[in-house]
Amino acid sequence: MSDGTSDGVPGGASEGVNSSVLDQRYGGAAPASIASANDVIALLQRHRSVRSFTDEGIDDDTVTLIVSAAQSAATSSNMQAWSVIEVRDPEHKAAISVLAGDQAFIRRAPVFLIFVADWSRHRGVAEHRGETAEGVEYIESTLVGFIDAALAAQNATIAAESLGLGAVYVGAVRNRPEELADLLELPPSAFPVMGIALGHPDPADRAGIKPRLPQDVVRHRETYRPAPDAAIVAYDDAVRTYYAGQGMSHGWIGTILGRIRSAATLRGREKLRSALERRGLPSK
Amino acid sequence: MSDGTSDGVPGGASEGVNSSVLDQRYGGAAPASIASANDVIALLQRHRSVRSFTDEGIDDDTVTLIVSAAQSAATSSNMQAWSVIEVRDPEHKAAISVLAGDQAFIRRAPVFLIFVADWSRHRGVAEHRGETAEGVEYIESTLVGFIDAALAAQNATIAAESLGLGAVYVGAVRNRPEELADLLELPPSAFPVMGIALGHPDPADRAGIKPRLPQDVVRHRETYRPAPDAAIVAYDDAVRTYYAGQGMSHGWIGTILGRIRSAATLRGREKLRSALERRGLPSK
Repeated sequence: MSDGTSDGVPGGASEGVNSSVLDQRYGGAAPASIASANDVIALLQRHRSVRSFTDEGIDDDTVTLIVSAAQSAATSSNMQAWSVIEVRDPEHKAAISVLAGDQAFIRRAPVFLIFVADWSRHRGVAEHRGETAEGVEYIESTLVGFIDAALAAQNATIAAESLGLGAVYVGAVRNRPEELADLLELPPSAFPVMGIALGHPDPADRAGIKPRLPQDVVRHRETYRPAPDAAIVAYDDAVRTYYAGQGMSHGWIGTILGRIRSAATLRGREKLRSALERRGLPSK
Repeated sequence: MSDGTSDGVPGGASEGVNSSVLDQRYGGAAPASIASANDVIALLQRHRSVRSFTDEGIDDDTVTLIVSAAQSAATSSNMQAWSVIEVRDPEHKAAISVLAGDQAFIRRAPVFLIFVADWSRHRGVAEHRGETAEGVEYIESTLVGFIDAALAAQNATIAAESLGLGAVYVGAVRNRPEELADLLELPPSAFPVMGIALGHPDPADRAGIKPRLPQDVVRHRETYRPAPDAAIVAYDDAVRTYYAGQGMSHGWIGTILGRIRSAATLRGREKLRSALERRGLPSK
Protein backbone atom coordinates (compact mmCIF):
# COMPACT_ATOMS: atom_id res chain seq x y z
CA MET A 1 0.00 0.00 0.00
CA SER A 2 1.50 3.35 -0.96
CA ASP A 3 1.46 6.43 1.24
CA GLY A 4 -1.48 7.83 -0.64
CA THR A 5 0.43 10.29 -2.77
CA SER A 6 1.14 8.01 -5.73
CA ASP A 7 0.99 9.49 -9.20
CA GLY A 8 -2.41 10.10 -10.54
CA VAL A 9 -4.41 9.12 -7.48
CA PRO A 10 -4.78 12.41 -5.61
CA GLY A 11 -5.57 11.75 -1.99
CA GLY A 12 -4.89 8.03 -2.46
CA ALA A 13 -5.96 6.23 0.69
CA SER A 14 -3.64 4.89 3.33
CA GLU A 15 -4.96 1.81 5.12
CA GLY A 16 -6.18 3.97 8.01
CA VAL A 17 -8.04 6.27 5.66
CA ASN A 18 -9.37 3.27 3.77
CA SER A 19 -11.02 1.68 6.81
CA SER A 20 -12.67 5.04 7.53
CA VAL A 21 -13.85 5.21 3.91
CA LEU A 22 -15.40 1.75 4.26
CA ASP A 23 -17.11 2.73 7.51
CA GLN A 24 -18.69 5.63 5.63
CA ARG A 25 -19.47 3.52 2.58
CA TYR A 26 -21.35 0.94 4.63
CA GLY A 27 -22.62 3.33 7.32
CA GLY A 28 -20.64 1.44 9.96
CA ALA A 29 -21.65 -2.00 8.65
CA ALA A 30 -18.63 -2.83 6.45
CA PRO A 31 -17.94 -6.54 5.80
CA ALA A 32 -15.65 -7.83 8.57
CA SER A 33 -13.33 -9.79 6.32
CA ILE A 34 -12.62 -7.12 3.74
CA ALA A 35 -9.08 -7.12 2.38
CA SER A 36 -6.90 -4.02 2.10
CA ALA A 37 -7.59 -2.07 -1.03
CA ASN A 38 -4.96 -1.01 -3.55
CA ASP A 39 -4.92 2.61 -4.77
CA VAL A 40 -7.34 1.94 -7.63
CA ILE A 41 -9.93 0.23 -5.43
CA ALA A 42 -9.51 2.91 -2.75
CA LEU A 43 -10.30 5.51 -5.44
CA LEU A 44 -13.45 3.60 -6.42
CA GLN A 45 -14.54 3.13 -2.79
CA ARG A 46 -14.33 6.81 -1.92
CA HIS A 47 -16.46 8.02 -4.85
CA ARG A 48 -18.86 10.80 -3.95
CA SER A 49 -21.11 12.97 -6.06
CA VAL A 50 -19.65 16.47 -6.45
CA ARG A 51 -22.10 19.26 -7.33
CA SER A 52 -20.04 22.29 -6.18
CA PHE A 53 -17.24 23.43 -8.43
CA THR A 54 -14.57 26.14 -8.32
CA ASP A 55 -14.02 28.59 -11.21
CA GLU A 56 -11.13 26.53 -12.59
CA GLY A 57 -11.64 25.19 -16.11
CA ILE A 58 -10.83 21.82 -17.71
CA ASP A 59 -8.64 21.88 -20.81
CA ASP A 60 -9.31 20.06 -24.06
CA ASP A 61 -6.47 17.54 -23.58
CA THR A 62 -7.93 16.44 -20.26
CA VAL A 63 -11.27 15.66 -21.89
CA THR A 64 -9.43 13.82 -24.67
CA LEU A 65 -7.80 11.66 -22.00
CA ILE A 66 -11.12 11.08 -20.22
CA VAL A 67 -12.85 10.08 -23.48
CA SER A 68 -9.98 7.69 -24.32
CA ALA A 69 -10.68 5.97 -20.98
CA ALA A 70 -14.41 5.89 -21.78
CA GLN A 71 -13.74 4.29 -25.16
CA SER A 72 -11.55 1.65 -23.51
CA ALA A 73 -14.48 0.20 -21.55
CA ALA A 74 -15.99 -3.05 -22.75
CA THR A 75 -18.81 -2.73 -25.28
CA SER A 76 -21.30 -5.36 -26.41
CA SER A 77 -19.76 -7.25 -29.37
CA ASN A 78 -17.64 -4.13 -30.05
CA MET A 79 -20.81 -2.34 -31.24
CA GLN A 80 -19.76 0.89 -29.46
CA ALA A 81 -23.43 1.89 -29.50
CA TRP A 82 -22.86 5.21 -27.73
CA SER A 83 -21.68 8.76 -28.28
CA VAL A 84 -20.80 11.62 -25.96
CA ILE A 85 -21.70 15.27 -26.47
CA GLU A 86 -19.29 17.67 -24.75
CA VAL A 87 -21.00 20.92 -23.80
CA ARG A 88 -18.93 23.94 -22.75
CA ASP A 89 -20.72 26.96 -24.25
CA PRO A 90 -22.38 28.81 -21.32
CA GLU A 91 -25.61 29.62 -23.19
CA HIS A 92 -25.92 26.10 -24.56
CA LYS A 93 -25.24 24.67 -21.10
CA ALA A 94 -27.84 26.98 -19.56
CA ALA A 95 -30.49 25.89 -22.07
CA ILE A 96 -29.67 22.24 -21.41
CA SER A 97 -29.78 22.68 -17.63
CA VAL A 98 -33.35 24.00 -17.88
CA LEU A 99 -34.40 20.75 -19.62
CA ALA A 100 -32.50 18.64 -17.07
CA GLY A 101 -34.25 19.58 -13.83
CA ASP A 102 -33.05 23.21 -13.93
CA GLN A 103 -30.05 22.28 -11.81
CA ALA A 104 -27.63 25.16 -11.22
CA PHE A 105 -24.57 22.93 -10.93
CA ILE A 106 -24.86 22.06 -14.61
CA ARG A 107 -24.40 25.74 -15.46
CA ARG A 108 -21.56 25.98 -12.94
CA ALA A 109 -19.61 22.93 -14.22
CA PRO A 110 -17.03 23.90 -16.89
CA VAL A 111 -17.80 20.71 -18.85
CA PHE A 112 -21.08 18.85 -19.13
CA LEU A 113 -20.85 15.48 -20.87
CA ILE A 114 -24.04 13.90 -22.19
CA PHE A 115 -23.77 10.19 -22.89
CA VAL A 116 -26.06 9.00 -25.65
CA ALA A 117 -27.27 5.53 -26.63
CA ASP A 118 -26.41 5.66 -30.33
CA TRP A 119 -27.48 3.29 -33.08
CA SER A 120 -27.65 6.08 -35.67
CA ARG A 121 -24.08 5.36 -36.76
CA HIS A 122 -24.87 1.70 -37.42
CA ARG A 123 -28.09 2.59 -39.25
CA GLY A 124 -26.11 5.03 -41.39
CA VAL A 125 -23.58 2.35 -42.30
CA ALA A 126 -26.43 -0.01 -43.25
CA GLU A 127 -28.37 2.58 -45.29
CA HIS A 128 -25.20 3.61 -47.13
CA ARG A 129 -24.89 -0.02 -48.28
CA GLY A 130 -28.55 -0.63 -49.04
CA GLU A 131 -28.93 -2.93 -46.04
CA THR A 132 -31.75 -3.12 -43.49
CA ALA A 133 -31.36 -2.29 -39.79
CA GLU A 134 -34.50 -3.78 -38.25
CA GLY A 135 -32.58 -5.16 -35.28
CA VAL A 136 -32.26 -1.62 -33.95
CA GLU A 137 -36.03 -1.58 -33.32
CA TYR A 138 -35.95 -4.13 -30.48
CA ILE A 139 -35.57 -3.46 -26.76
CA GLU A 140 -32.39 -5.56 -26.78
CA SER A 141 -30.80 -2.81 -28.88
CA THR A 142 -32.11 -0.02 -26.69
CA LEU A 143 -30.67 -1.82 -23.66
CA VAL A 144 -27.32 -2.44 -25.36
CA GLY A 145 -27.09 1.27 -26.18
CA PHE A 146 -27.87 2.19 -22.57
CA ILE A 147 -25.43 -0.42 -21.19
CA ASP A 148 -22.64 0.65 -23.55
CA ALA A 149 -23.20 4.31 -22.62
CA ALA A 150 -23.16 3.47 -18.91
CA LEU A 151 -19.94 1.43 -19.09
CA ALA A 152 -18.23 4.24 -21.00
CA ALA A 153 -19.58 6.90 -18.63
CA GLN A 154 -18.33 5.01 -15.60
CA ASN A 155 -14.81 4.84 -17.05
CA ALA A 156 -15.02 8.58 -17.77
CA THR A 157 -16.03 9.26 -14.16
CA ILE A 158 -13.20 7.15 -12.76
CA ALA A 159 -10.66 8.79 -15.08
CA ALA A 160 -11.89 12.24 -14.03
CA GLU A 161 -11.75 11.36 -10.34
CA SER A 162 -8.23 9.94 -10.75
CA LEU A 163 -7.22 13.41 -12.03
CA GLY A 164 -8.67 15.09 -8.94
CA LEU A 165 -11.83 16.29 -10.70
CA GLY A 166 -15.30 15.97 -9.21
CA ALA A 167 -18.27 14.51 -11.04
CA VAL A 168 -21.97 13.90 -10.65
CA TYR A 169 -24.31 11.89 -12.85
CA VAL A 170 -27.44 13.61 -14.13
CA GLY A 171 -30.32 11.26 -14.92
CA ALA A 172 -32.54 14.30 -15.47
CA VAL A 173 -31.38 14.39 -19.11
CA ARG A 174 -34.25 11.88 -19.49
CA ASN A 175 -36.84 14.34 -18.08
CA ARG A 176 -37.52 16.10 -21.40
CA PRO A 177 -35.46 13.94 -23.74
CA GLU A 178 -37.02 14.98 -27.04
CA GLU A 179 -36.43 18.69 -26.46
CA LEU A 180 -32.90 17.88 -25.34
CA ALA A 181 -32.35 15.71 -28.42
CA ASP A 182 -33.44 18.64 -30.59
CA LEU A 183 -31.06 20.99 -28.79
CA LEU A 184 -28.16 18.54 -29.24
CA GLU A 185 -29.21 17.85 -32.86
CA LEU A 186 -29.34 14.12 -32.17
CA PRO A 187 -30.25 12.05 -35.23
CA PRO A 188 -32.91 9.30 -35.09
CA SER A 189 -31.86 6.29 -32.95
CA ALA A 190 -29.63 8.43 -30.73
CA PHE A 191 -31.09 9.12 -27.28
CA PRO A 192 -29.77 10.78 -24.08
CA VAL A 193 -28.91 8.29 -21.31
CA MET A 194 -27.27 10.45 -18.66
CA GLY A 195 -25.10 13.48 -18.16
CA ILE A 196 -21.93 13.95 -16.14
CA ALA A 197 -21.14 17.41 -14.75
CA LEU A 198 -17.37 17.77 -14.41
CA GLY A 199 -15.30 20.35 -12.56
CA HIS A 200 -12.77 21.01 -9.84
CA PRO A 201 -14.43 20.25 -6.47
CA ASP A 202 -15.19 23.20 -4.22
CA PRO A 203 -13.27 22.43 -1.00
CA ALA A 204 -16.22 23.79 1.03
CA ASP A 205 -18.59 21.13 -0.36
CA ARG A 206 -20.02 19.02 2.45
CA ALA A 207 -21.31 16.08 0.39
CA GLY A 208 -19.63 12.93 1.62
CA ILE A 209 -19.42 9.23 0.92
CA LYS A 210 -23.00 7.98 0.93
CA PRO A 211 -23.69 4.72 2.75
CA ARG A 212 -24.82 1.78 0.62
CA LEU A 213 -26.86 -1.31 1.48
CA PRO A 214 -25.03 -4.01 3.48
CA GLN A 215 -23.04 -6.14 1.10
CA ASP A 216 -25.02 -9.31 1.83
CA VAL A 217 -28.23 -7.58 0.70
CA VAL A 218 -26.97 -7.08 -2.87
CA ARG A 219 -24.56 -10.05 -3.08
CA HIS A 220 -26.12 -13.48 -3.45
CA ARG A 221 -24.27 -16.80 -3.47
CA GLU A 222 -25.32 -19.26 -6.19
CA THR A 223 -29.01 -18.25 -5.97
CA TYR A 224 -31.00 -15.16 -5.04
CA ARG A 225 -31.99 -14.74 -1.38
CA PRO A 226 -34.29 -11.81 -0.48
CA ALA A 227 -33.06 -9.55 2.33
CA PRO A 228 -35.03 -9.55 5.60
CA ASP A 229 -36.96 -6.33 6.20
CA ALA A 230 -34.85 -5.72 9.32
CA ALA A 231 -31.76 -5.25 7.14
CA ILE A 232 -33.60 -2.59 5.14
CA VAL A 233 -34.74 -0.82 8.31
CA ALA A 234 -31.16 -0.81 9.68
CA TYR A 235 -29.94 0.65 6.38
CA ASP A 236 -32.69 3.29 6.50
CA ASP A 237 -31.20 4.36 9.87
CA ALA A 238 -27.69 4.58 8.38
CA VAL A 239 -28.97 6.81 5.56
CA ARG A 240 -30.87 8.95 8.09
CA THR A 241 -27.67 9.39 10.13
CA TYR A 242 -25.73 10.35 6.99
CA TYR A 243 -28.20 13.06 5.98
CA ALA A 244 -28.57 14.32 9.57
CA GLY A 245 -24.85 15.19 9.36
CA GLN A 246 -25.78 17.53 6.48
CA GLY A 247 -28.73 19.06 8.30
CA MET A 248 -31.27 17.04 6.31
CA SER A 249 -33.88 14.65 7.57
CA HIS A 250 -34.72 11.64 5.41
CA GLY A 251 -34.06 7.96 5.17
CA TRP A 252 -34.06 5.38 2.37
CA ILE A 253 -37.46 3.75 2.66
CA GLY A 254 -39.37 7.00 2.19
CA THR A 255 -37.21 7.87 -0.81
CA ILE A 256 -37.82 4.59 -2.64
CA LEU A 257 -41.55 4.52 -1.83
CA GLY A 258 -41.82 8.07 -3.20
CA ARG A 259 -40.01 7.01 -6.34
CA ILE A 260 -41.95 3.85 -7.23
CA ARG A 261 -45.47 4.58 -5.94
CA SER A 262 -47.14 5.37 -9.27
CA ALA A 263 -46.70 6.65 -12.81
CA ALA A 264 -47.01 10.20 -11.46
CA THR A 265 -44.03 9.76 -9.11
CA LEU A 266 -41.82 9.22 -12.18
CA ARG A 267 -42.37 12.93 -12.84
CA GLY A 268 -42.53 12.83 -16.62
CA ARG A 269 -40.37 9.80 -17.20
CA GLU A 270 -43.47 7.59 -17.42
CA LYS A 271 -43.59 8.90 -21.01
CA LEU A 272 -40.11 7.67 -21.85
CA ARG A 273 -41.25 4.74 -23.94
CA SER A 274 -43.18 6.89 -26.42
CA ALA A 275 -40.24 9.31 -26.57
CA LEU A 276 -37.91 6.41 -27.43
CA GLU A 277 -40.35 5.24 -30.11
CA ARG A 278 -40.58 8.66 -31.73
CA ARG A 279 -36.79 8.98 -31.65
CA GLY A 280 -36.04 5.76 -33.50
CA LEU A 281 -35.56 3.33 -30.63
CA PRO A 282 -39.02 1.73 -30.56
CA SER A 283 -37.95 -0.93 -28.03
CA LYS A 284 -40.22 -3.66 -29.42
CA MET B 1 4.59 8.72 -13.75
CA SER B 2 5.67 5.68 -11.78
CA ASP B 3 7.81 2.88 -13.16
CA GLY B 4 4.79 0.69 -13.66
CA THR B 5 5.21 -1.45 -10.59
CA SER B 6 3.15 0.63 -8.17
CA ASP B 7 1.07 -1.24 -5.65
CA GLY B 8 -2.17 -2.56 -6.94
CA VAL B 9 -1.65 -1.74 -10.60
CA PRO B 10 0.12 -4.82 -11.93
CA GLY B 11 1.95 -3.99 -15.11
CA GLY B 12 1.21 -0.27 -14.65
CA ALA B 13 2.23 1.50 -17.83
CA SER B 14 5.34 3.56 -18.28
CA GLU B 15 4.90 6.43 -20.72
CA GLY B 16 6.49 4.40 -23.47
CA VAL B 17 4.17 1.49 -22.85
CA ASN B 18 1.23 3.87 -22.61
CA SER B 19 1.78 5.32 -26.08
CA SER B 20 1.91 1.78 -27.43
CA VAL B 21 -1.33 1.00 -25.59
CA LEU B 22 -2.96 4.01 -27.24
CA ASP B 23 -1.72 2.97 -30.66
CA GLN B 24 -3.43 -0.36 -30.10
CA ARG B 25 -6.54 1.21 -28.62
CA TYR B 26 -7.03 3.45 -31.63
CA GLY B 27 -5.53 1.09 -34.23
CA GLY B 28 -2.77 3.62 -34.95
CA ALA B 29 -5.17 6.61 -35.04
CA ALA B 30 -4.77 7.92 -31.45
CA PRO B 31 -5.58 11.61 -30.86
CA ALA B 32 -2.39 13.64 -31.41
CA SER B 33 -2.79 15.86 -28.38
CA ILE B 34 -3.46 13.20 -25.80
CA ALA B 35 -1.92 13.88 -22.39
CA SER B 36 0.09 11.34 -20.42
CA ALA B 37 -2.08 9.01 -18.42
CA ASN B 38 -1.73 8.39 -14.72
CA ASP B 39 -1.70 4.78 -13.45
CA VAL B 40 -5.49 4.59 -13.11
CA ILE B 41 -6.18 5.85 -16.63
CA ALA B 42 -3.44 3.61 -18.02
CA LEU B 43 -5.21 0.65 -16.37
CA LEU B 44 -8.50 1.67 -18.01
CA GLN B 45 -6.89 2.20 -21.40
CA ARG B 46 -5.28 -1.22 -21.54
CA HIS B 47 -8.48 -3.17 -20.76
CA ARG B 48 -8.86 -6.32 -22.79
CA SER B 49 -11.36 -9.15 -22.61
CA VAL B 50 -9.81 -12.24 -21.00
CA ARG B 51 -11.46 -15.58 -21.77
CA SER B 52 -8.53 -17.91 -20.90
CA PHE B 53 -7.88 -18.60 -17.26
CA THR B 54 -5.33 -20.59 -15.25
CA ASP B 55 -6.37 -23.10 -12.56
CA GLU B 56 -5.79 -20.57 -9.78
CA GLY B 57 -8.85 -19.71 -7.70
CA ILE B 58 -10.16 -16.42 -6.31
CA ASP B 59 -10.78 -16.26 -2.58
CA ASP B 60 -13.87 -14.97 -0.86
CA ASP B 61 -12.18 -11.82 0.51
CA THR B 62 -11.17 -10.79 -2.99
CA VAL B 63 -14.78 -10.96 -4.20
CA THR B 64 -15.84 -9.00 -1.09
CA LEU B 65 -13.39 -6.28 -2.10
CA ILE B 66 -14.61 -6.33 -5.73
CA VAL B 67 -18.26 -6.06 -4.65
CA SER B 68 -17.41 -3.16 -2.31
CA ALA B 69 -16.01 -1.35 -5.35
CA ALA B 70 -19.15 -2.22 -7.34
CA GLN B 71 -21.38 -0.84 -4.59
CA SER B 72 -19.36 2.39 -4.53
CA ALA B 73 -20.36 3.29 -8.09
CA ALA B 74 -22.98 5.98 -8.56
CA THR B 75 -26.59 4.78 -8.63
CA SER B 76 -29.70 6.65 -9.76
CA SER B 77 -31.09 8.54 -6.71
CA ASN B 78 -29.36 5.95 -4.49
CA MET B 79 -31.96 3.38 -5.66
CA GLN B 80 -29.27 0.65 -5.92
CA ALA B 81 -31.59 -1.17 -8.29
CA TRP B 82 -29.22 -4.09 -8.86
CA SER B 83 -27.95 -7.30 -7.32
CA VAL B 84 -25.10 -9.64 -8.13
CA ILE B 85 -25.21 -13.43 -8.04
CA GLU B 86 -21.82 -15.02 -7.40
CA VAL B 87 -21.58 -18.47 -8.94
CA ARG B 88 -18.74 -20.82 -8.00
CA ASP B 89 -20.29 -24.29 -7.86
CA PRO B 90 -19.01 -26.21 -10.93
CA GLU B 91 -22.33 -27.91 -11.72
CA HIS B 92 -24.31 -24.73 -11.28
CA LYS B 93 -21.81 -22.84 -13.43
CA ALA B 94 -22.02 -25.55 -16.12
CA ALA B 95 -25.82 -25.36 -16.22
CA ILE B 96 -25.64 -21.56 -16.49
CA SER B 97 -23.03 -21.66 -19.25
CA VAL B 98 -25.36 -23.79 -21.38
CA LEU B 99 -28.02 -21.06 -21.16
CA ALA B 100 -25.46 -18.32 -21.91
CA GLY B 101 -24.23 -19.32 -25.34
CA ASP B 102 -22.64 -22.57 -24.11
CA GLN B 103 -19.33 -20.79 -23.69
CA ALA B 104 -16.56 -22.95 -22.18
CA PHE B 105 -14.78 -20.04 -20.52
CA ILE B 106 -17.71 -19.62 -18.12
CA ARG B 107 -17.12 -23.16 -16.87
CA ARG B 108 -13.38 -22.50 -16.71
CA ALA B 109 -13.61 -19.21 -14.73
CA PRO B 110 -13.42 -19.79 -10.96
CA VAL B 111 -16.03 -17.07 -10.37
CA PHE B 112 -18.94 -16.06 -12.58
CA LEU B 113 -20.75 -12.92 -11.47
CA ILE B 114 -24.23 -12.26 -12.86
CA PHE B 115 -25.38 -8.66 -12.52
CA VAL B 116 -29.12 -8.31 -12.20
CA ALA B 117 -31.44 -5.31 -12.64
CA ASP B 118 -33.34 -5.59 -9.37
CA TRP B 119 -36.54 -3.80 -8.32
CA SER B 120 -37.77 -6.81 -6.32
CA ARG B 121 -36.21 -5.37 -3.14
CA HIS B 122 -38.07 -2.07 -3.55
CA ARG B 123 -41.33 -3.84 -4.34
CA GLY B 124 -40.88 -5.96 -1.22
CA VAL B 125 -40.37 -2.86 0.93
CA ALA B 126 -43.54 -1.33 -0.57
CA GLU B 127 -45.66 -4.48 -0.18
CA HIS B 128 -44.50 -4.91 3.42
CA ARG B 129 -45.91 -1.43 4.12
CA GLY B 130 -49.11 -1.76 2.11
CA GLU B 131 -47.86 0.66 -0.55
CA THR B 132 -48.11 0.42 -4.34
CA ALA B 133 -45.11 0.05 -6.66
CA GLU B 134 -46.56 0.91 -10.07
CA GLY B 135 -43.52 2.99 -11.03
CA VAL B 136 -41.56 -0.25 -11.44
CA GLU B 137 -43.72 -1.10 -14.48
CA TYR B 138 -42.32 1.65 -16.72
CA ILE B 139 -39.36 1.44 -19.09
CA GLU B 140 -37.66 4.20 -17.09
CA SER B 141 -37.36 1.72 -14.21
CA THR B 142 -36.11 -1.08 -16.45
CA LEU B 143 -33.46 1.28 -17.81
CA VAL B 144 -32.44 2.51 -14.34
CA GLY B 145 -31.97 -1.11 -13.25
CA PHE B 146 -29.84 -1.85 -16.32
CA ILE B 147 -27.82 1.37 -15.89
CA ASP B 148 -27.25 0.77 -12.17
CA ALA B 149 -26.16 -2.80 -12.87
CA ALA B 150 -23.79 -1.63 -15.62
CA LEU B 151 -22.15 1.06 -13.47
CA ALA B 152 -21.63 -1.44 -10.65
CA ALA B 153 -20.33 -4.10 -13.05
CA GLN B 154 -17.82 -1.71 -14.57
CA ASN B 155 -16.42 -0.86 -11.13
CA ALA B 156 -16.19 -4.59 -10.40
CA THR B 157 -14.27 -5.13 -13.64
CA ILE B 158 -11.83 -2.31 -12.90
CA ALA B 159 -11.30 -3.51 -9.34
CA ALA B 160 -10.62 -7.04 -10.61
CA GLU B 161 -8.20 -5.81 -13.28
CA SER B 162 -6.38 -3.66 -10.69
CA LEU B 163 -5.76 -6.89 -8.75
CA GLY B 164 -4.26 -8.57 -11.82
CA LEU B 165 -7.35 -10.64 -12.60
CA GLY B 166 -8.80 -10.99 -16.08
CA ALA B 167 -12.46 -10.45 -16.92
CA VAL B 168 -14.89 -10.69 -19.80
CA TYR B 169 -18.49 -9.50 -19.99
CA VAL B 170 -21.12 -12.01 -21.04
CA GLY B 171 -24.21 -10.47 -22.66
CA ALA B 172 -25.40 -13.99 -23.49
CA VAL B 173 -27.07 -14.15 -20.07
CA ARG B 174 -29.90 -12.41 -22.00
CA ASN B 175 -30.14 -15.27 -24.54
CA ARG B 176 -32.49 -17.43 -22.43
CA PRO B 177 -33.16 -15.08 -19.54
CA GLU B 178 -36.26 -16.77 -18.14
CA GLU B 179 -34.59 -20.16 -17.80
CA LEU B 180 -31.57 -18.45 -16.27
CA ALA B 181 -33.80 -16.50 -13.86
CA ASP B 182 -35.36 -19.81 -12.77
CA LEU B 183 -31.93 -21.36 -12.22
CA LEU B 184 -30.81 -18.36 -10.15
CA GLU B 185 -34.18 -18.28 -8.31
CA LEU B 186 -34.66 -14.62 -9.25
CA PRO B 187 -37.87 -13.12 -7.85
CA PRO B 188 -40.25 -11.06 -10.02
CA SER B 189 -38.75 -7.70 -11.14
CA ALA B 190 -35.18 -9.05 -11.01
CA PHE B 191 -33.69 -9.74 -14.46
CA PRO B 192 -30.20 -10.74 -15.69
CA VAL B 193 -28.28 -7.87 -17.35
CA MET B 194 -24.84 -9.34 -17.94
CA GLY B 195 -22.28 -11.71 -16.54
CA ILE B 196 -18.61 -11.24 -15.79
CA ALA B 197 -16.32 -14.27 -15.92
CA LEU B 198 -13.37 -13.70 -13.57
CA GLY B 199 -10.09 -15.54 -13.25
CA HIS B 200 -6.33 -15.34 -13.42
CA PRO B 201 -5.34 -14.68 -17.04
CA ASP B 202 -3.64 -17.49 -18.92
CA PRO B 203 -0.27 -16.02 -20.00
CA ALA B 204 -0.62 -17.81 -23.35
CA ASP B 205 -3.82 -15.92 -24.22
CA ARG B 206 -3.38 -13.95 -27.45
CA ALA B 207 -6.36 -11.59 -27.11
CA GLY B 208 -5.09 -8.03 -27.14
CA ILE B 209 -6.30 -4.47 -26.84
CA LYS B 210 -9.05 -4.09 -29.41
CA PRO B 211 -9.06 -0.93 -31.52
CA ARG B 212 -11.98 1.44 -31.02
CA LEU B 213 -13.51 4.04 -33.33
CA PRO B 214 -11.50 7.27 -33.78
CA GLN B 215 -12.25 9.59 -30.89
CA ASP B 216 -13.85 12.26 -33.07
CA VAL B 217 -16.43 9.73 -34.30
CA VAL B 218 -17.89 9.20 -30.81
CA ARG B 219 -17.08 12.62 -29.27
CA HIS B 220 -19.21 15.54 -30.40
CA ARG B 221 -18.72 19.18 -29.43
CA GLU B 222 -21.88 21.06 -28.41
CA THR B 223 -24.04 19.26 -30.99
CA TYR B 224 -24.05 15.88 -32.76
CA ARG B 225 -22.13 15.58 -36.04
CA PRO B 226 -22.43 12.30 -37.99
CA ALA B 227 -19.14 10.67 -38.97
CA PRO B 228 -18.23 10.50 -42.66
CA ASP B 229 -18.41 6.99 -44.11
CA ALA B 230 -14.67 7.19 -44.87
CA ALA B 231 -13.93 7.24 -41.13
CA ILE B 232 -15.95 4.05 -40.70
CA VAL B 233 -14.15 2.37 -43.62
CA ALA B 234 -10.75 3.33 -42.15
CA TYR B 235 -11.83 1.88 -38.80
CA ASP B 236 -13.03 -1.29 -40.51
CA ASP B 237 -9.46 -1.66 -41.82
CA ALA B 238 -7.99 -1.21 -38.33
CA VAL B 239 -10.28 -3.93 -36.96
CA ARG B 240 -9.37 -6.20 -39.88
CA THR B 241 -5.66 -5.69 -39.13
CA TYR B 242 -6.24 -6.45 -35.45
CA TYR B 243 -8.01 -9.74 -36.15
CA ALA B 244 -5.52 -10.71 -38.86
CA GLY B 245 -2.89 -10.69 -36.08
CA GLN B 246 -4.92 -13.45 -34.41
CA GLY B 247 -5.37 -15.45 -37.59
CA MET B 248 -8.97 -14.28 -38.10
CA SER B 249 -10.46 -12.45 -41.00
CA HIS B 250 -13.21 -9.95 -40.33
CA GLY B 251 -13.79 -6.24 -40.04
CA TRP B 252 -16.31 -4.02 -38.27
CA ILE B 253 -18.84 -3.21 -40.96
CA GLY B 254 -19.72 -6.84 -41.60
CA THR B 255 -20.09 -7.46 -37.88
CA ILE B 256 -22.51 -4.61 -37.30
CA LEU B 257 -24.55 -5.33 -40.42
CA GLY B 258 -24.84 -8.95 -39.30
CA ARG B 259 -26.01 -7.81 -35.87
CA ILE B 260 -28.68 -5.28 -36.87
CA ARG B 261 -30.06 -6.70 -40.13
CA SER B 262 -33.31 -8.16 -38.79
CA ALA B 263 -35.13 -9.62 -35.81
CA ALA B 264 -33.59 -13.00 -36.66
CA THR B 265 -30.04 -11.67 -36.37
CA LEU B 266 -30.73 -10.91 -32.69
CA ARG B 267 -30.70 -14.69 -32.22
CA GLY B 268 -33.42 -14.99 -29.63
CA ARG B 269 -33.03 -11.61 -28.01
CA GLU B 270 -35.84 -10.22 -30.19
CA LYS B 271 -38.07 -11.86 -27.56
CA LEU B 272 -36.54 -9.93 -24.68
CA ARG B 273 -39.45 -7.54 -24.25
CA SER B 274 -41.96 -10.30 -23.57
CA ALA B 275 -39.47 -11.97 -21.21
CA LEU B 276 -39.14 -8.71 -19.27
CA GLU B 277 -42.93 -8.41 -19.11
CA ARG B 278 -43.40 -11.93 -17.80
CA ARG B 279 -40.66 -11.35 -15.22
CA GLY B 280 -42.15 -8.22 -13.66
CA LEU B 281 -40.41 -5.49 -15.64
CA PRO B 282 -43.12 -4.73 -18.24
CA SER B 283 -41.28 -1.68 -19.59
CA LYS B 284 -44.44 0.28 -20.38
